[in-house]
Amino acid sequence: MPQKRQLKLGFMLHGVGMGWGDWRHPDGDPAASTSFEYYKRQAQLAEAAKFDFLFVADSVFITEKSSPHYLNRFEPLTILSALAGATSHIGLVATLTSSYSEPFNVARQFASLDHISGGRAGWNVVTSWLEGSATNFSKASHLAHDTRYRLAAEHLDVVQGLWDSWEDDALVHDKKSGVFFDPKKLHALNHKGEFFQVKGPLNIARSAQGQPVIFQAGASEDGKNFASSRADAIFVHHENLAEGKAYYRDIKQRAAGFGRDPDKLFILPGIRPVIGSTEAEVERKYRDFANLTSIENALSMLGRPFNDYDFLQHDLDASFPDVSAHGANSNQSTSRKILETAHRENLTLREVALHFATPRTEFVGTAEQVADAFQRWLEEHGSDGFVVNVSLPKELEVFVEVVIPILQARGIFRTEYEAETFRGNLGIPVPSNRHAVPGVAVAAE
Amino acid sequence: MPQKRQLKLGFMLHGVGMGWGDWRHPDGDPAASTSFEYYKRQAQLAEAAKFDFLFVADSVFITEKSSPHYLNRFEPLTILSALAGATSHIGLVATLTSSYSEPFNVARQFASLDHISGGRAGWNVVTSWLEGSATNFSKASHLAHDTRYRLAAEHLDVVQGLWDSWEDDALVHDKKSGVFFDPKKLHALNHKGEFFQVKGPLNIARSAQGQPVIFQAGASEDGKNFASSRADAIFVHHENLAEGKAYYRDIKQRAAGFGRDPDKLFILPGIRPVIGSTEAEVERKYRDFANLTSIENALSMLGRPFNDYDFLQHDLDASFPDVSAHGANSNQSTSRKILETAHRENLTLREVALHFATPRTEFVGTAEQVADAFQRWLEEHGSDGFVVNVSLPKELEVFVEVVIPILQARGIFRTEYEAETFRGNLGIPVPSNRHAVPGVAVAAE
Repeated sequence: MPQKRQLKLGFMLHGVGMGWGDWRHPDGDPAASTSFEYYKRQAQLAEAAKFDFLFVADSVFITEKSSPHYLNRFEPLTILSALAGATSHIGLVATLTSSYSEPFNVARQFASLDHISGGRAGWNVVTSWLEGSATNFSKASHLAHDTRYRLAAEHLDVVQGLWDSWEDDALVHDKKSGVFFDPKKLHALNHKGEFFQVKGPLNIARSAQGQPVIFQAGASEDGKNFASSRADAIFVHHENLAEGKAYYRDIKQRAAGFGRDPDKLFILPGIRPVIGSTEAEVERKYRDFANLTSIENALSMLGRPFNDYDFLQHDLDASFPDVSAHGANSNQSTSRKILETAHRENLTLREVALHFATPRTEFVGTAEQVADAFQRWLEEHGSDGFVVNVSLPKELEVFVEVVIPILQARGIFRTEYEAETFRGNLGIPVPSNRHAVPGVAVAAE
Repeated sequence: MPQKRQLKLGFMLHGVGMGWGDWRHPDGDPAASTSFEYYKRQAQLAEAAKFDFLFVADSVFITEKSSPHYLNRFEPLTILSALAGATSHIGLVATLTSSYSEPFNVARQFASLDHISGGRAGWNVVTSWLEGSATNFSKASHLAHDTRYRLAAEHLDVVQGLWDSWEDDALVHDKKSGVFFDPKKLHALNHKGEFFQVKGPLNIARSAQGQPVIFQAGASEDGKNFASSRADAIFVHHENLAEGKAYYRDIKQRAAGFGRDPDKLFILPGIRPVIGSTEAEVERKYRDFANLTSIENALSMLGRPFNDYDFLQHDLDASFPDVSAHGANSNQSTSRKILETAHRENLTLREVALHFATPRTEFVGTAEQVADAFQRWLEEHGSDGFVVNVSLPKELEVFVEVVIPILQARGIFRTEYEAETFRGNLGIPVPSNRHAVPGVAVAAE
């Protein structure tokens, strides 16, 4: 019997939880976002459960109105480097903006993490959607949405080009002759583009997986084209399975259109499961979570993808206001999804705010119900897996204890890691070095 | 009896060794520069010996003529973050250039390392002296020497300002009322300077040591003023004790002139000890090291502080050529030191190259001789300690086994760490948050 298609599962690693009020829960640790011990415990638990990867989100601008999750937290590359030494098989995906970083520094830091971890690094390429970000980086204004994506594509060109500076057999290390490396196998990049001019070469060789895995989280038109042409995995958010299936079909077709194998591009929606042993417990837990976030806080969270729009100025119980202009150059996909949901279901502002603060999805249920939902999305091609985002430390333990075993019993999730590297576990190949002569290069893994 | 003045000791953490040919030694591991296991072993050995800190050097430009040490190595912040989890008391000092980095990113990454390590981070602020660096960062040209230092000072202003975004008691974490933080104790920076405009606030709070420790390695006139006004420790290189004493006096006077306590600024020359159990073994070991570097390689290394000047075009056995112009906008202090040594001792090009490739200093000797040298420099105010740079893994073991115990027996080096944080072990205070009201702020440690 051939093996069933396998779920790819990421764990969203964070401190205080991505809901506004999660830290207020009796089980919540308000200081978790800068506690290495907390991160290490969660990471090791996710690895013991055979998750494919840890995913660390990011942003580069806060105000006093920002959610607790954004205000005070680790920078992704540093915390994942620390966790590289405390784990052995799980992938390590760091979010980093292309809009406010130097490709040479980005290439080096990810390559370094890739070596430290033995080939387990991933880069979630984002373009930053908060306009205020520009004010932290000496820029007069935030780049327009389409320009940000053009820049991101060129930034990634440079980073991936730098990652191939050294052919896999360039380091000769011949003690007797004194030849450390073969200069013919070290390549400058000499990139001269619209946004970047980078000579190279990079001062670090390729790792066991060749290059870090590329994630993308964009879901706008620009974002979808960028992701389906360049990414190995896409992090996305959906309201329901129908939306997921339409997106899945769209992206896989785009990938094929770009000449890629659609099966080597993984679509991984973020979900927030709430799991109880009975439906009554599920309901109680969900309510407990929802009640931690006040309507004011829910409105603040809602305002974020609309460039920190102040929803408090509107009547809470009237129809959802027309704020489409405020999302245009910010987070297009999220702001559009909020508008669509509000109009489709004719919701008031209060209803929309509470819905997005604590989503009541099919991943809120008993272990069997949640496992059923996982299987349904996989089999009906709504996704290739998920990025699991739980609000509290204990909720990861629950998920690992009661949901993972069902998925394993059904043969749709691994019981052991297949490989040492992140690419190996995802089942995607080590990319050939662009400079290598086919048939001559030494395999990297 | 009052405690004797204590040596501050750093360990220069690297892979293949900073001499050109160290990797060729029978005990050398040519792949060490990207081996996490190797770095971890060295770091833990240095911590067991109670070194104050690990120091990781850096540069952002290589060519095929670069020394093996530069070609392929970890990026400092990522490797030190990984080591933060594998150590508990030793300081973690990462070199990072102010010339090609965004202050917001730098502030975040060091603050994050500082939290991960429980208050053990240090930033060695460098300005990058290789002109080619500009070509890796989309810049038309490398900034002039004095401009680089003006930019570095402003960059550090911004980073230190961002580090104080959160007062130490800003995070209230009151679950009942839902108050996560006190907005009056979160501060935007609103920096508008010659090179940077950064609004802030930073999205991470202060650590157990308040702010990371600042190192500086500049030894030019610009560098000395920057270091004596802003740094907690200075990494420097001297030819001999007389030079060290003159520098020490000069810097401590400058520090006093800037209104600082000169005893809270540590001057730490880099040294390369070679230790043998007899003078004959010392001589043999020194010769073995020296013979690993060819004259061609020694000339390449010599060319680096002169902006990769090609010394091969000159007669090896004639007087040292006049190349002073090539060092002016590059590494002023090192290029000047080479010129001075050559002229003072009337050396040929060959002699100068071999001297700087494998320095024959008073730190080449038996354990007693090396310990004597340490004590002499400390007592005669040539330095406050050293950054110890050994060429091979085994040499750290030797140093720890035979030299450290002598220093401890003489009462000039610790037998146990005094504190949990880097500042605590250096004996320098946690800086007050600039926004805190005196007498009201909560202590950070």
